[in-house]
Amino acid sequence: MASGSGEELHGHEDEDYGDAATMEAVRQLRAGYAWADVVSFEPASAAGRAVRVRGAAQAVRAVGRRVAILVLRQGAATVQCVVSGGDGGMARFAAGLSRESVVDVAGVVSLPREPVRGTTQQLVEIQVEKLHCISRAVPNLPISVDAAARSEEDVARAKAAGEQLVHVGQDKRLGYRVIDLRTAANQAIFRVQCQVENVFRQVLLSEGFVGIHTPKLIGGSSEGGAAVFKLDYNGQPACLAQSPQLHKQMAVCGGFERVFEVGPVFRAESSDTHRHLCEFVGLDVEMALRDHYSEVCDVVDRLFVAMFDHLNKNCAKELEAIQRQYPFKPYLETTLRLDYDEGIRMLQEAGVHVDPMGDLNTGREKAGRACSRQRFSIACLTWVELNHDRYGTEFYILGRYPSAVRPFYTMPCSDDPRYSCSFDVFVRGEEIISGAQRVHDPELLAAQAEARGIDVSTIAAYVNSFRYGAPPHGGFGVGLERVVMLFCGLGNIRKTSLFPRDPRRLAP
Amino acid sequence: MASGSGEELHGHEDEDYGDAATMEAVRQLRAGYAWADVVSFEPASAAGRAVRVRGAAQAVRAVGRRVAILVLRQGAATVQCVVSGGDGGMARFAAGLSRESVVDVAGVVSLPREPVRGTTQQLVEIQVEKLHCISRAVPNLPISVDAAARSEEDVARAKAAGEQLVHVGQDKRLGYRVIDLRTAANQAIFRVQCQVENVFRQVLLSEGFVGIHTPKLIGGSSEGGAAVFKLDYNGQPACLAQSPQLHKQMAVCGGFERVFEVGPVFRAESSDTHRHLCEFVGLDVEMALRDHYSEVCDVVDRLFVAMFDHLNKNCAKELEAIQRQYPFKPYLETTLRLDYDEGIRMLQEAGVHVDPMGDLNTGREKAGRACSRQRFSIACLTWVELNHDRYGTEFYILGRYPSAVRPFYTMPCSDDPRYSCSFDVFVRGEEIISGAQRVHDPELLAAQAEARGIDVSTIAAYVNSFRYGAPPHGGFGVGLERVVMLFCGLGNIRKTSLFPRDPRRLAP
Repeated sequence: MASGSGEELHGHEDEDYGDAATMEAVRQLRAGYAWADVVSFEPASAAGRAVRVRGAAQAVRAVGRRVAILVLRQGAATVQCVVSGGDGGMARFAAGLSRESVVDVAGVVSLPREPVRGTTQQLVEIQVEKLHCISRAVPNLPISVDAAARSEEDVARAKAAGEQLVHVGQDKRLGYRVIDLRTAANQAIFRVQCQVENVFRQVLLSEGFVGIHTPKLIGGSSEGGAAVFKLDYNGQPACLAQSPQLHKQMAVCGGFERVFEVGPVFRAESSDTHRHLCEFVGLDVEMALRDHYSEVCDVVDRLFVAMFDHLNKNCAKELEAIQRQYPFKPYLETTLRLDYDEGIRMLQEAGVHVDPMGDLNTGREKAGRACSRQRFSIACLTWVELNHDRYGTEFYILGRYPSAVRPFYTMPCSDDPRYSCSFDVFVRGEEIISGAQRVHDPELLAAQAEARGIDVSTIAAYVNSFRYGAPPHGGFGVGLERVVMLFCGLGNIRKTSLFPRDPRRLAP
Repeated sequence: MASGSGEELHGHEDEDYGDAATMEAVRQLRAGYAWADVVSFEPASAAGRAVRVRGAAQAVRAVGRRVAILVLRQGAATVQCVVSGGDGGMARFAAGLSRESVVDVAGVVSLPREPVRGTTQQLVEIQVEKLHCISRAVPNLPISVDAAARSEEDVARAKAAGEQLVHVGQDKRLGYRVIDLRTAANQAIFRVQCQVENVFRQVLLSEGFVGIHTPKLIGGSSEGGAAVFKLDYNGQPACLAQSPQLHKQMAVCGGFERVFEVGPVFRAESSDTHRHLCEFVGLDVEMALRDHYSEVCDVVDRLFVAMFDHLNKNCAKELEAIQRQYPFKPYLETTLRLDYDEGIRMLQEAGVHVDPMGDLNTGREKAGRACSRQRFSIACLTWVELNHDRYGTEFYILGRYPSAVRPFYTMPCSDDPRYSCSFDVFVRGEEIISGAQRVHDPELLAAQAEARGIDVSTIAAYVNSFRYGAPPHGGFGVGLERVVMLFCGLGNIRKTSLFPRDPRRLAP
């Protein structure tokens, strides 16, 4: 209905309820009611207050002919609204509302005789005096929020009891993400994600890092390799950055010394896995080093311990909501730091066969990038279980990888160039962060590229950027979605991307 | 030189100076010296301390045969290092260093008899005891940091005095951005930019907003129009998001109510202007509204006043550094809020001819987007000068634009649909922010699109996302680079993009 028509309330002569075309029309009818948030009702102080709330009609049911119960949801918070009184017209109007319609309720907060079941506000309810529908949802929703919020366990339990509960598959959820996002678990997941990013930024800012933004449109492919999205840039060939690697290194060499970036990273992945996306949010760090590449590991360590502490302390409600739908064991806090050699030795002691160099030298995924991560992470998965018993942690940093399995720009160890100044970080048995000291000497960089069969002329711009004075430096990158997935023990990275992009999905 | 070769210091038998292949090699020679930051030297406490600093050799000159003066730079901080003593070997080594080489200095902090000229640390200097070069810059730099740091005024003044000073043009600067970024002004600009983003995030987080990340790879063009980068996505046609508009609206409808995003925005602009980039960082906000779209303006107002206050209070050093190279008047703090009608009236009173509707109805830039912004901003430029005298501000919000000049998804005013629930924000006479309430009613949205000649079937996904219950909502977007450019009175947006992308530039 067009606004500004003069006739802005429709369907009912009684102004106490009806459809409203504009929020301005409702406002006129809400004198004497104060805006309130469902999440912040406190039984002691709220009782008796005349309030106004707006939210989604999560559930509606008629109780006899003159009463209706409406569960109103704001974010992840829900409250019961009792619609009664008068000639029953308002209750019939309420009972006729389609689920997920946005309604504007005015009424008085009261204390129910018994705690309300199934709402987050159990000790207060609202006695409705005015009720207007702001936005009607279609009567037949493609998925229901209730069904999308069910855990697999609930569905299985019901099935065992002979009951059939709808289970919404991943693909359908993602197809109707605007509804799927309304579940308590999803509301929590993306609030946790926001906190992860915020702690990342605040810890780094407090340590003198500068937040930067590097271009995503670049002239060549950022790390070589095939998984690159190509495009035409005003007649020039261009591609989307696969990582901010070169530009964050240039920022360090440009005098900023310690930088970080939060931004999209693009990988034209062709294989569908539970842990890869074609577009994800990269948390990247690059810093000048003083004495040793372990300074990068120190930053990782402080950063992730602060992050996980913060989540455990400040996001208890959100973690609980996620656990209700997707059960996981809370994370254990100590960090374990080991060199690659020691990890291999521990695996061998435990009877797991791993060839210290060979296992990693096979099955290269692509030129110029670390290889055989997957095989190694399977080995580590076994190892981390041992590790968990022995050390009480699921978070560890494994350093000094063999040079052969790291990119050409990785600095070799000064005491033994067969090993490199590099590390990976594992959470719950999966690799989550990759980091290293970079080669800042243009001659060594060119030599290492050549030794890998890379045509140095194709990376001349990269090599040349170190010819104007370059400090020793290193850094790391980590996917925001992966951090949240592994911290919350979620089995699929699509659960931690707001609108995921995988090899098949480009919408919504 | 390859590291791990056993022979890591080169060129000199004396270990007090020389070239060092690795940072590990230098470390061994630095026992007894404590790492220090140039910026934090305090004369009273630093004097007599044995320190170690690493930085760029900004300037080097021999003083006689046995003394050399080296100006060492870290970020924007500089300190004078005096190289003397022994047989003069170290002084000769120092004098032979190419500018911008990275050096590792160990020595004792002393108090110079007279303040040092030309360094940021004027009351302390370092008596060098050990000096190693970590990374040699090429002897002939393509641009010098000194020349890049010169203001146009300095060049003009020198010229007037018959002296010829090198002036580095914009294009050359950007070509060698890794050197150009080392100037004090650039060090300051990107630190200010980081603070702008941080205040934006912190103010919004404190008001209950959730930070989100929406996809940059999308299946259609985000707002229609031609300025879209197209690419192939595993066989599907795709493009880069021109704004997070749809997805941030979906996030609000998905239950998050108040969201913000900081991320890249892509526009395949074909015209080179001082204020457009093909890739910039968008600061975006979208929020559920309660009563009126002015709630969005309230957020803008609080946000930008907080931001500008923070910069004036906490970034005085940085603003000073920028002003030294690019003089600008400090920003005035009060916000002025006016409706479009009033602005037009004021212009007319001042004798500036502006047709209240007509002026804006001509010269559409592109279908579906606001038109004739440029002409209007020229009008406003005149107006803001009047305004500055009358109101003492260069920051104002102009609301209630005619509907005809805003995109089809803009909500018409409920009292007069010829006007819309929209606004622009101007800083120093240029439009910086555009915002509005969006149409959340799918029927009205389709009708408005159709009235503009848009084929509704092409925007079905957009329209349909409001069919599952949608709260009234609105938001705004602003370019990070533009905020910094206008706040600092910089004349070109390329100055506030770390590695700018314009129609001709895709590198570095």
